Formats: sequence, C-alpha cells, structure tokens
Amino acid sequence: MQTAEARILDRQRPIDWLHGLVAPDMAAVDRVIHERLGSAVPLIPDLARHLVDSGGKRLRPLLTIAAARLNGYRGSHHVKLAAAVEFIHTATLLHDDVVDVSALRRGKIAANVVWGNKSSVLVGDYLFSRAFQLMVQAGDVAVLDVLASASAVIAEGEVLQLRSANNLATSRDHYLRVITAKTAALFAAAAETGAMIAGGTEDFIAAMRAYGHALGISFQLIDDALDYSGRQAQMGKSIGDDFREAKVTLPVIVAFERADQVAQEFWRRTIEDGAQHEGDLKRAIAYVDETGAIEETGALARRYADQAMTALAAVPSHEIRDALMAVAEFCVGRGY
Amino acid sequence: MQTAEARILDRQRPIDWLHGLVAPDMAAVDRVIHERLGSAVPLIPDLARHLVDSGGKRLRPLLTIAAARLNGYRGSHHVKLAAAVEFIHTATLLHDDVVDVSALRRGKIAANVVWGNKSSVLVGDYLFSRAFQLMVQAGDVAVLDVLASASAVIAEGEVLQLRSANNLATSRDHYLRVITAKTAALFAAAAETGAMIAGGTEDFIAAMRAYGHALGISFQLIDDALDYSGRQAQMGKSIGDDFREAKVTLPVIVAFERADQVAQEFWRRTIEDGAQHEGDLKRAIAYVDETGAIEETGALARRYADQAMTALAAVPSHEIRDALMAVAEFCVGRGY
Repeated sequence: MQTAEARILDRQRPIDWLHGLVAPDMAAVDRVIHERLGSAVPLIPDLARHLVDSGGKRLRPLLTIAAARLNGYRGSHHVKLAAAVEFIHTATLLHDDVVDVSALRRGKIAANVVWGNKSSVLVGDYLFSRAFQLMVQAGDVAVLDVLASASAVIAEGEVLQLRSANNLATSRDHYLRVITAKTAALFAAAAETGAMIAGGTEDFIAAMRAYGHALGISFQLIDDALDYSGRQAQMGKSIGDDFREAKVTLPVIVAFERADQVAQEFWRRTIEDGAQHEGDLKRAIAYVDETGAIEETGALARRYADQAMTALAAVPSHEIRDALMAVAEFCVGRGY
Repeated sequence: MQTAEARILDRQRPIDWLHGLVAPDMAAVDRVIHERLGSAVPLIPDLARHLVDSGGKRLRPLLTIAAARLNGYRGSHHVKLAAAVEFIHTATLLHDDVVDVSALRRGKIAANVVWGNKSSVLVGDYLFSRAFQLMVQAGDVAVLDVLASASAVIAEGEVLQLRSANNLATSRDHYLRVITAKTAALFAAAAETGAMIAGGTEDFIAAMRAYGHALGISFQLIDDALDYSGRQAQMGKSIGDDFREAKVTLPVIVAFERADQVAQEFWRRTIEDGAQHEGDLKRAIAYVDETGAIEETGALARRYADQAMTALAAVPSHEIRDALMAVAEFCVGRGY
C-alpha cells in the first residue's frame, strides 16, 4: 500500500502514478516477457533481454493494461496482449538498428552496432513471432487483426521515413504520415486491444483508440524535439541521433524553412549530403532553437495531447482515466 | 483439360504435375499474393514483387493447397493460408539478404545488395504482418498458432546458422538442427495447416506434417549439395553462394573431415578466415567431389525422402497423394 504522501508524489510523475494503479498486472507482464524470451538458442534471450531490460517505461503495454482495467476487466488475457505489444515494439527497435552501407560510409556508426545487423533482424523476427503466439493464446481473433494491421502500418511508416531521410523537401504532411504510422499506430492498437479484450462498448473502444493515436503523435513530436534540446544535453541525456542519421523531423523542416542562406547551406551539407563534422550538432541545435522550431513542434504536440484528453472526456470517471489524462499532459510537458 | 500426353509429360516433372492438379487454387493464391502486396508506399510492392515474381516454384503454398484438397476441402480459406505461407517464406528470404559489415569486409557483396539492408528488413516485416492478417481472415486460431510457432522456429534456425558460419567444428547434429528449423519447420507447417483447415483427422494432420518435415530436410540437403555441384555450374545455374558466405553445410563438414593437410588449410583459410581468392570456388567443388561429400549428402537426403513417402503411405489413395510422393522422389533426384 502507498502512503498518501507517496501518492501525491506519484501524481507529479504521471507514468509512475498510472503504473502504480496497475502494478500487479505490470509485474505479471514482466514475468510473461521474461518467460517468452526464453530460447534454446542463447544469443536470442541475451540480445533481447539487453533491450527489454534497458529501462524503458513500458508505456505501450501500460496502455493495454490500463484500458482493460478501466473497463473493469477481471481476466488475465490483457497481460498476454500487453507482453505481445511490448514484443512488437522491441522487434521494431531491433529492426531500426539495422544500418546500410550508405550510413556506414558517413562513418558515424559504431562498429559494434553494425556487427549485429543480422542478429538484430533475426532476434526481432523471433520476438515478432512470439508476439503472435501470445496473441493466439489470448484467443481473440479481432484483437489479432488489429495488431497485425498495426504491424503492417508500422513497417510502412518506417519505409516512408527511409524515403524522407536526407530529403529537406520533406513536407509536414509526409512527416506526420510517418510518425502516425511508425509510432501512433502501435499506441492506438495497444489501447484499443486492451479495451477490446475487456469487452468494452464500441464507444469505449473507439475512445481508447483515439486516445492512443493522439498520445502517440504527441509523444513522437516531443521525442523529435528533445533530440535537438540543449537542456537535454545539459542533463547528460543522449541527443543528436536523428541529426546524425540525417532524419528530417519537424524541427529540421521548420528550421530549414526559416533558414538564411548560410543556414540553408549548413542543412544541405549535413542532412542532404550527410557530411557532418565536429561542432555541427551544436550548430544544428542553435539553428533549431533560434528559428522557434522547438516551440512550433511543442505547440503541435500540445494540440495532439489535448485531442488525447478530449477522447477520454466521454469515458466514465475513474482514477485510471485521470492518470491517463495526466500522462498525456506530462508527455507534452517533458523538459525540453 | 489436359491431354493424356500432357499428363504423362507432367508426371516426369512432379511439381508441375502436382501444380496441374490444383491449378485453379494456385492461380487464386497468386491473385491473393498480388492483391496483398499492395501498399500506398511504392517501394513495398516494387521490392516485394521483385522477389515474389522471381520464378520460384511456390512449393510451400503448393503443399498447403495439396493437403487441403487431398482431404476433400471445398472451402476457400486454404488459398489465404497458402498465400500467408508464401509471404512468410518471402519475408525470411528478404531478411536473409541482410548483410553485416563482417561480410562486407570480405568484399564479396555487391553494393546494390547492401544498399538495401534496411529496405529488405522493412519490406520483410510488412509481408510478415500481411501473412498474419491473411491467417486472421482464415479464422482458425489453431492454424495461427502452428504458423506463429513455425516463424519463431525459423528465426531460431537462422540464428543457429549464424553461429555456425565460419566454424568448421560445426557438428552434423548442429547442421541438422539448423536446416530442420530454418527450412523443414515451414514445409511441415505448410502441409499441416492445409490439413487442419480442411478438417482432417488427427492422423491425417500428423501424416501431412511428417511429410512436410521430411521433405523439407531432404530439400535443403539437396540444395546444399547443389551449391557445390559442377553440373549445376555447367547448366549455367548460380552456385557457390554458401561458400562465399562461409556457411558450414554438410558437404563442407564431410569434405573437411576427410581432408588432407593441404585441403584442411584451404578450408581454414576460405571458411574460417573468409579469405577467398579467384579459383577457390573451383577448388572447393573439387574437394567436395573427391571426398564423396556430395554422395553422403545425397544419401541422407534419400533417407528423408523415403521418410516423407512413408508418412504418406497411411493416407488414402488419391492422385494428389501420388503426386506428393513423386515430388519427394523428384526433390532428391534433382540433377547434381
């Protein structure tokens, strides 16, 4: 049991608050994840555990569990689904690690990352297969359909993102299509399937899906802003990954739109030609900051967070609902 | 309708014979495959079609269709399952294209192949997701379980194979484990799920699974032998892929066991160190030939082909059964 004081503190850290409301379920999700990582082939659990235990917040499975419990679910299938959702997420992270020679040629990728191309692919495939086995065990074909469709959309989103790399002519629409597919699709499916397995009404299922969708977009926008955040850098957090990979995210789109000639040449060299030197990241951060690109990205994230909260307005009052609202508010307010 | 003469000719080409017995179904499989390749993201159908239309014999989906029809199936779900099986196969081929810097360093991989690492991964993921969507539409959860498990086993097999690359100490047991997982698992699941969707008895389902399993091992053994076949080379077919990738297949295991000191040094240099020069493939083929490694591989393939035919012995007489028998006989007799 939590003390009143602990609960007040938790409300200032909404993900922890939500986590605390479904802690036994999330512990069960963790157990299932570690059980199902097992394989007679040692590399598989070793590599997968490295990622699974890397301290992520398990936000996606948390959405599945929260949606199910919010609808008063008393069964145990939501735990299997939540573990499946985390496996799909981990598989996409592993597959995102795969690099091309084009990237290598720029000499920015650590060799140890690269040596693992094939392993990353295969362990990702293994987790993906495990995810479907878990869904089969949850036994709901409609849920399987939602998650299989989400997986197809994620792959499409990653391909779209590939096409916009190095391309400063990427439009805001294209960028939004990318993040909707690669991030929001799984957030939406995670929340939706939790609602489905709990036997929620059509309205409840639609509300949870809409919440997940909007939260996912908001979350990714902020993630993309944080990658150019000087404050993040001061906090010792890793930044600049998108810049190094020449991804064209909203902060870059805006900064390039508003760039003078010198800045335009800078972006062409570093993003289009991928020719990056020491000090370039610092300069990129300065340009992004000066042009108000972070504010604009944040403002858009705010609109999607509001959309997420609006989606929940129709859901009956419940502490889990309040915590989900706070999570949307928190995601957009993350320190950048 | 076929003429009597055409049917006699077909019996000499057993895969065509089997294909002819279920031709409308296989045409339907083709239609489903091309429909489901569709995506609003152009790269996806382009890349996938390149592989799907590359003239493969569609042996795996053929097993699914044949097993269903052999049990008198009159529905249409077997077509979706067969397309799903082909998608899983194509996805694993795409993921098998992914190369590591270790491979690159040997300078053996064409640049165009390499540029596509990330695309290969993502399009493979897309096909894999599409496969699960098709299975969901076939609506049989037990079938989904079998194919999800097969997918997990395939990934394990590929990881096992990764570990045996460059390793001349690879045992026959390890090698058999690899090919059972990476090839036979999908052959077995393809035949089994065809039997399942057709509502076959437990005995029939087990017989089809056993047939697919043994056929898959036999098929892979012959494939591995053909990769060192001088006759294949004369026929203008591509050989030497396994050698270039330093895969330790049964022909190499046997040839290395029986190697004199000079030959041992050759294998150590080319397989363990991956230092290959012009003329090495020719020398490798000569060593494999001289030591009887091809015969030994062929003899083992023969045993598995016999096992496949034995599995069918209990199945009621039917022209499809006869054609499946002939396919097993043909696979082991392929020209090496």
